[in-house]
Amino acid sequence: MRSYHVNSGDGIDGLSIRKHEDPFPGAGQVVVAVRATSLNFRELMVLRGDYVLPVKSDVVPLSDGAGDVVAVGPGVDGFSVGDRVAATLFPSWQYGPFGVQHLPQRGGSLDGMLTELAVIEAIGLVPVPDHLSYEEAATLPCAAVTAWNALTGDGIGLRAGETVVTQGSGGVSLFALQFAKALGARVIATTSSPAKARRLAELGADEVIDYRATPDWPAEVLELTGGRGADRVVDVAGLLEQSLKAVMIGGHVACVGFVSDTAAPIDPRVLFASGATVRAVAVGSRAQFLAMNRAIEVNRIRPVIDRVFTFDEAPDACRYYASGEAVGKVVIRA
Amino acid sequence: MRSYHVNSGDGIDGLSIRKHEDPFPGAGQVVVAVRATSLNFRELMVLRGDYVLPVKSDVVPLSDGAGDVVAVGPGVDGFSVGDRVAATLFPSWQYGPFGVQHLPQRGGSLDGMLTELAVIEAIGLVPVPDHLSYEEAATLPCAAVTAWNALTGDGIGLRAGETVVTQGSGGVSLFALQFAKALGARVIATTSSPAKARRLAELGADEVIDYRATPDWPAEVLELTGGRGADRVVDVAGLLEQSLKAVMIGGHVACVGFVSDTAAPIDPRVLFASGATVRAVAVGSRAQFLAMNRAIEVNRIRPVIDRVFTFDEAPDACRYYASGEAVGKVVIRA
Amino acid sequence: MRSYHVNSGDGIDGLSIRKHEDPFPGAGQVVVAVRATSLNFRELMVLRGDYVLPVKSDVVPLSDGAGDVVAVGPGVDGFSVGDRVAATLFPSWQYGPFGVQHLPQRGGSLDGMLTELAVIEAIGLVPVPDHLSYEEAATLPCAAVTAWNALTGDGIGLRAGETVVTQGSGGVSLFALQFAKALGARVIATTSSPAKARRLAELGADEVIDYRATPDWPAEVLELTGGRGADRVVDVAGLLEQSLKAVMIGGHVACVGFVSDTAAPIDPRVLFASGATVRAVAVGSRAQFLAMNRAIEVNRIRPVIDRVFTFDEAPDACRYYASGEAVGKVVIRA
Amino acid sequence: MRSYHVNSGDGIDGLSIRKHEDPFPGAGQVVVAVRATSLNFRELMVLRGDYVLPVKSDVVPLSDGAGDVVAVGPGVDGFSVGDRVAATLFPSWQYGPFGVQHLPQRGGSLDGMLTELAVIEAIGLVPVPDHLSYEEAATLPCAAVTAWNALTGDGIGLRAGETVVTQGSGGVSLFALQFAKALGARVIATTSSPAKARRLAELGADEVIDYRATPDWPAEVLELTGGRGADRVVDVAGLLEQSLKAVMIGGHVACVGFVSDTAAPIDPRVLFASGATVRAVAVGSRAQFLAMNRAIEVNRIRPVIDRVFTFDEAPDACRYYASGEAVGKVVIRA
Repeated sequence: MRSYHVNSGDGIDGLSIRKHEDPFPGAGQVVVAVRATSLNFRELMVLRGDYVLPVKSDVVPLSDGAGDVVAVGPGVDGFSVGDRVAATLFPSWQYGPFGVQHLPQRGGSLDGMLTELAVIEAIGLVPVPDHLSYEEAATLPCAAVTAWNALTGDGIGLRAGETVVTQGSGGVSLFALQFAKALGARVIATTSSPAKARRLAELGADEVIDYRATPDWPAEVLELTGGRGADRVVDVAGLLEQSLKAVMIGGHVACVGFVSDTAAPIDPRVLFASGATVRAVAVGSRAQFLAMNRAIEVNRIRPVIDRVFTFDEAPDACRYYASGEAVGKVVIRA
Repeated sequence: MRSYHVNSGDGIDGLSIRKHEDPFPGAGQVVVAVRATSLNFRELMVLRGDYVLPVKSDVVPLSDGAGDVVAVGPGVDGFSVGDRVAATLFPSWQYGPFGVQHLPQRGGSLDGMLTELAVIEAIGLVPVPDHLSYEEAATLPCAAVTAWNALTGDGIGLRAGETVVTQGSGGVSLFALQFAKALGARVIATTSSPAKARRLAELGADEVIDYRATPDWPAEVLELTGGRGADRVVDVAGLLEQSLKAVMIGGHVACVGFVSDTAAPIDPRVLFASGATVRAVAVGSRAQFLAMNRAIEVNRIRPVIDRVFTFDEAPDACRYYASGEAVGKVVIRA
Repeated sequence: MRSYHVNSGDGIDGLSIRKHEDPFPGAGQVVVAVRATSLNFRELMVLRGDYVLPVKSDVVPLSDGAGDVVAVGPGVDGFSVGDRVAATLFPSWQYGPFGVQHLPQRGGSLDGMLTELAVIEAIGLVPVPDHLSYEEAATLPCAAVTAWNALTGDGIGLRAGETVVTQGSGGVSLFALQFAKALGARVIATTSSPAKARRLAELGADEVIDYRATPDWPAEVLELTGGRGADRVVDVAGLLEQSLKAVMIGGHVACVGFVSDTAAPIDPRVLFASGATVRAVAVGSRAQFLAMNRAIEVNRIRPVIDRVFTFDEAPDACRYYASGEAVGKVVIRA
Repeated sequence: MRSYHVNSGDGIDGLSIRKHEDPFPGAGQVVVAVRATSLNFRELMVLRGDYVLPVKSDVVPLSDGAGDVVAVGPGVDGFSVGDRVAATLFPSWQYGPFGVQHLPQRGGSLDGMLTELAVIEAIGLVPVPDHLSYEEAATLPCAAVTAWNALTGDGIGLRAGETVVTQGSGGVSLFALQFAKALGARVIATTSSPAKARRLAELGADEVIDYRATPDWPAEVLELTGGRGADRVVDVAGLLEQSLKAVMIGGHVACVGFVSDTAAPIDPRVLFASGATVRAVAVGSRAQFLAMNRAIEVNRIRPVIDRVFTFDEAPDACRYYASGEAVGKVVIRA
């Protein structure tokens, strides 16, 4: 079987492919024949060497993947050969709030999914919804779980009838849009072009704001909400001051990371005056993944895939993803 | 202007119509030109004389109604002449849990809506969603708010991906079905005939169980949920032991009243063994009504109306409603 | 090492003691030198043969126990030789709501703690608060976790300033009293004698009602709460109709089982008219046990122990517990 | 009757005292004979002219006060002459999240409590706990409600056994300390002197960190919590980056304003890396005030008063408060 390997900081050109003996599962482990993987902004950071968490040397990259169980080790409950599964990003984060003990992560301090056969602890796997292809299932572990956590992970979470702002057409934002509509909310999406605006409307956005045409998009959000502001913003760009202007007093801004490299400092007075809550969200627990999958199944949600590459084209997939042109997920088929 | 009046216990034949001077609004009050009212099981109990709460003599019956504001008294904020409004059932229940101080209710200890002009405290009104007709808006105060409270009124409430059982095709059950779908849940509806089953499926029910063909419907719910049971049951019939068999350990049964006259006693051991929560739900607060209206607006939900009668046909409307044949609400146009 | 064994239905006289080879821990397992165990009503049901869940033949009885780790198997994280630990009652119930997959239980379908050396999966253990003796720690797994879950396990849970009713002086009720005071609530305790009333007041009860002197104790609760009713009742006796009369509209009755053999059926109309929530509570998850232990530590709570027996006196301990005379827990030292 | 008046920006020397006719209550209003008022940081901002919200000209300053009802207008429910009451800061904020419609505030855009007789809408009053003096009750509306909201106002709120960090010995911080102990939490308090440290320990702080002796107090919090961090920080100083270092992943920082004039900007990467939630908290609703009062009553909490001034000494009281020397509240007796 073959795996890609890289040292963090060596960039896309540092990706190399190697052959290995087929692995056997240890106690509590499962071997997964990976059928598809997907890319997230974190992979670019790992390749560039500026990822915030430790990365092992010669790591098999990519946190996200889905496939079939081909071998089951002793002491494994709940999985059998032939089961369709996806990996969780933080294998030991089973439930509840994240803790330092949960830091080991796939495609970082642990080997990831850009491989033909992955050995994974059973507690780090979830079953895949029946109506999803492997390519679709491979998009869930990082972006979809992050979006689900951003919308539902704080106490009561998003309620039907509330208004959510999503930003752009990256993976997390499109999942946030789809989940928010399934939860009965109104979605105002921001975007940078009329073509993307049309795509967002097709996916269910109730209103779309082109932030190139309307740089003061928070003012437009206030206008669209009768001066009240959105109940919730899923901030993917680190533009917290703008998000705080778009959100209502008592509203909620989920800060899910930084797709850009620049993040302006926040004046704490702006935060205080907003009367809002800002919550940092990084993926989610296995329990959240399972709950999300139930929502995906019942609502027949299908992840938005921009383009699929072959296993041999993995470096091209990374380059394409890095271009920022994709609307939805970039997938590599194994 | 004309109003219907009745003494509790005098039955449908006891309804009489009388003329009155047009009323003026006092401090904090609004006069509403009622355009439509709707019937609930509580009206039959008021007419029969077995309603659980006090009923004033010569009451103007019917808790539910919608219309236009035609006059505004001093000290009223938030309403103007011309506004489309609906009345709340318990006018003083503004938010939070119900208390004994909230017992006064429209169409019971207070005059109700089967009148051409109603004088109502402004705090007992809510604006009506724009996309609803008066007939549709008139169905909301009792049945829709009860269904909304049953699904969302306990802590976290129903989550997308969960499974709800609704019972039959009465007003509360159809709203529960529509709201549950808007919230992203899976709905298993029970019914008594193939014709009603088709109607429930059209309204979005994922599965329908004919409890005449399948008297052990809780077993069928277990079958449809992989042995786990439903996350939630909205029990409108007082069949709590059956509902407790259909619900999962840790699940939730909302007990919203008794559309039948018989309610079997519950063995507390069955309740304990169920591991479930049973919550008594009676309508909801004004804050819940407002939140529900936001969800109705965003999801463009339209109440299901079975039949509309004229103001002069009000007794016929009551007789038709009492027959139990309606699928959805019975409305009287003023 | 020695263990007690019994077949369910053989009663206290069926308890026999046997010698075994000292066990070795398998993968994921720990061997615990049991220092103390405690009795719950469930043990009497197991001995009598009317326990609601399956019991293995020749079971080592008693769900509750605490001791030291003396050996650690491969693949165990988080426990070392010398750690002071207590067992959880449902070893596989780690977090979230209970499910059918969590039914295996210690001292029932699994061997229990009335033994000198117990082999336990590491995920079925929790560390013991430092300030507790082994005897005190041995009282926690069933009664304390049940009380904690009853007070905090539903959404928001008990809030400071609210009023709780506890019933009698059994294990769950005393823990409920102590936890409720630590949570800042007011406690009204019921009891059957002036002597027990004094003991309850010493433990912090704000008011005590002698239900022999005042059989209509729900009326007294209403009196003590200005006619409003208690926010919450922890019902240990299956007297749900009385509890529903004592609780406020919108209040919460936790039904934690039946210390008596009789449980009157509930009229669903009483439940509906109460406007309350009834929740069946059976022990709790490991996550709840850990949260409870933090509260016990910070508030320096000490379990109330009525009497301690030696390992050889275990049958006497069971007989004493069955007499119902104990105020607090009955403990067996190993 | 006499009132103090001031124009925002005129400072303490701008305070003038004037005589007025005794007022009569209008519909829905109550006249309160003010017995005591208390000072908050907001009063200094109003006097200096840098308050963030609008201030009427010639305002009667001070949001906080308590006294007796001496006259009741038509249409008032729930208050009678002789009742002991306190005013709420935002009179129209009855429940739920704050909204722009709730901005009118006592001692700002509305006249405040530094007067002998205040005319107040009944919905802007709460009854005062019996065990509190007028001086104590006068400390509640701003600082205590803010502390209560900071600890309990987000979903589930602080739970028994969790760890809270409070900062210094101002009004909000001392209430946060007292409430956190009543809620069963562990409190780590920061302070600037050994004398204040002793006072904080007397009030129940489990640990006190002198941030002059230990400038890296977040590191000390990590040390005291086994490397995990506090569950919650009540940040009164706008030192958000430090608070974010002291709080655990998944923890909660309540940002209640700025007692200092400097507030360093926040790097959003620090916020994201913390994995925490930051919530801006400004006072709370009347429903929160009422819930807090129940907790104060049951737990016999007594506000900490540093010093009491007479009505004629009001300017001295402001100067003393501005010195920052007070440990607890500065009160003016009317």
